[in-house]
Amino acid sequence: MSDQVSLSLDEVRSLATNAFLHQGVSERQTSAVVNTVTNAERDGCKSHGLFRVPGYLKSVRSGKVTKDAEPVLSTLAPAVIKVDGANGLAPLAIERGRQPLIDRAREQGIAALAITNSYHFAALWPEVEPLAEEGLVAFAFVSSKAFVAPAGGTKPLYGTNPMAFAWPREGRPPVVFDQASSASARGEIGLHLRDGHDIPDGWGIDADGNPSNDPAAVLAGAQLPFGGYKGAALAMMVELLAGALVGDVFSFEASANDNADGGPSRGGELILAIDPSKCIDGGSSAGQLAHAEGLFAEILGQPGTRLPSDRRYAARAQTPTDGIKIPTSLFDEITALAS
Amino acid sequence: MSDQVSLSLDEVRSLATNAFLHQGVSERQTSAVVNTVTNAERDGCKSHGLFRVPGYLKSVRSGKVTKDAEPVLSTLAPAVIKVDGANGLAPLAIERGRQPLIDRAREQGIAALAITNSYHFAALWPEVEPLAEEGLVAFAFVSSKAFVAPAGGTKPLYGTNPMAFAWPREGRPPVVFDQASSASARGEIGLHLRDGHDIPDGWGIDADGNPSNDPAAVLAGAQLPFGGYKGAALAMMVELLAGALVGDVFSFEASANDNADGGPSRGGELILAIDPSKCIDGGSSAGQLAHAEGLFAEILGQPGTRLPSDRRYAARAQTPTDGIKIPTSLFDEITALAS
Repeated sequence: MSDQVSLSLDEVRSLATNAFLHQGVSERQTSAVVNTVTNAERDGCKSHGLFRVPGYLKSVRSGKVTKDAEPVLSTLAPAVIKVDGANGLAPLAIERGRQPLIDRAREQGIAALAITNSYHFAALWPEVEPLAEEGLVAFAFVSSKAFVAPAGGTKPLYGTNPMAFAWPREGRPPVVFDQASSASARGEIGLHLRDGHDIPDGWGIDADGNPSNDPAAVLAGAQLPFGGYKGAALAMMVELLAGALVGDVFSFEASANDNADGGPSRGGELILAIDPSKCIDGGSSAGQLAHAEGLFAEILGQPGTRLPSDRRYAARAQTPTDGIKIPTSLFDEITALAS
Repeated sequence: MSDQVSLSLDEVRSLATNAFLHQGVSERQTSAVVNTVTNAERDGCKSHGLFRVPGYLKSVRSGKVTKDAEPVLSTLAPAVIKVDGANGLAPLAIERGRQPLIDRAREQGIAALAITNSYHFAALWPEVEPLAEEGLVAFAFVSSKAFVAPAGGTKPLYGTNPMAFAWPREGRPPVVFDQASSASARGEIGLHLRDGHDIPDGWGIDADGNPSNDPAAVLAGAQLPFGGYKGAALAMMVELLAGALVGDVFSFEASANDNADGGPSRGGELILAIDPSKCIDGGSSAGQLAHAEGLFAEILGQPGTRLPSDRRYAARAQTPTDGIKIPTSLFDEITALAS
């Protein structure tokens, strides 16, 4: 299609890098955020790829995000470390805490990384996948802005609040899931609105609290959690972990504080890592990982199944051949931000 | 009703204690399991109260469970401890690990308790609530037998696999949720069968993999996860944490190994505890807990909402007045086991 531009991964990286640098974002901040954006394009996660660059840069241009923020690492307890994002974008804060978290998890058996004062606008699998590639079991929790009604309620309170989990595999990429506690991604509702389609039952309610299939009405009302009160409980858990526990804002506070520049809002995040070799007698995780392969084989032995991360890894394998396609309008928008 | 017996909490405790002791279960095993049963009755959780006693004792009488098992505590890493349940019932293993887990969490900031080789037949909130009463944030994960189909699949593979979470409150009982990753409790399907009622859409599929509202067909087929593939991902996570990570069986292996005596099957469990005061600068959790109260106030400020544990605490408050009612048939069955 003529309204699409085809890019290699290197071209994705250059395009995004030029835009961030041109807008005055420091090289370190740029490198981390562009890595996240490029990996999303690599894995076919379009909604977290180049599509996010204009939003990130809105928050840079509005002055909300500190362009040259240098995250500060500190140790709060033998198994707990903290990275203060220094009002910068989340990817550099996460990168700053990664190796210390890995080291602590290996020493202590389990460790936590509390991230505060940063701007998260990406998927959550980039936090846990690198930890599992190091042989660790990992969790991540992040909140956002008030979009989702609590169980029984009718007004936005929780963020779409994803949690991610990763399990390491020997000689293969980890099994990873990264799922919102809302019934749908907010972006999906926006796509339905753009295309003039109704949204499925269960995604949201209108401003009066009535179930609605109208994307505009739900965007003005509230999204619903997935799986009813159980998804709502997970959303509440994510608020507590990424907000009160680490000493940062809840989603509803992030909404209240935000300048509505169209970019991410400020918040916290919690990442946990467990060294499986420290959870059994004997000190080697080989048996645990082999055991887990038996579960994965049972899952895949049933027709119609797949592992949560399979689709993303399939896209990753295809990218070198297929390249990356983005709308020409997006390409032009990012190019303009770079010049 | 004349087919019900009214008991005080002390009478619940005596009735259960006499049955376990009469069946040769050690005083220490008995005390722990009866505590769990009594607390379930206290909180109105009938399906995990005295109703469970005959099942527990089936596994004792069949010889599957060791009557006088003494759980063994060991340290695997500075922040990871293990309790080998020694083939006994889970409550004593959990009790054995509780204070060491609390101590480790306070020292290290976060800690894990791996439980293996024990028989779990209770709810999961009893694991996390006492930890939160000590000011800690807590998670628990336990698997069961193969009841639930994986996402896209049609055959039982996962257990009903609950996870529980607790958040401490100042001067009030913790906020706790304890929820299966299946759409319904297995016992609920049994109750529909008994009463001749259809089950709701989404609870399960028949042996051919077709959606079914027939409780008998679903019990012979497979339960479904709550919330589709997202609940299935959580079920998979619980299998990995309570199985491979701690070095114990998956639910499908528990089913294959079990002697089908009607009691619990052998398995593992993972409990995590985080000291909130170690997750912020300053070292006091007072601000974090006060902040969380703001979230709870926002939830409860919306008409129609409640906190996940409110119903259980309301039942707890009512029990001293109302007493405990159980079917006469159950009372007679337990009395017979005690004499």
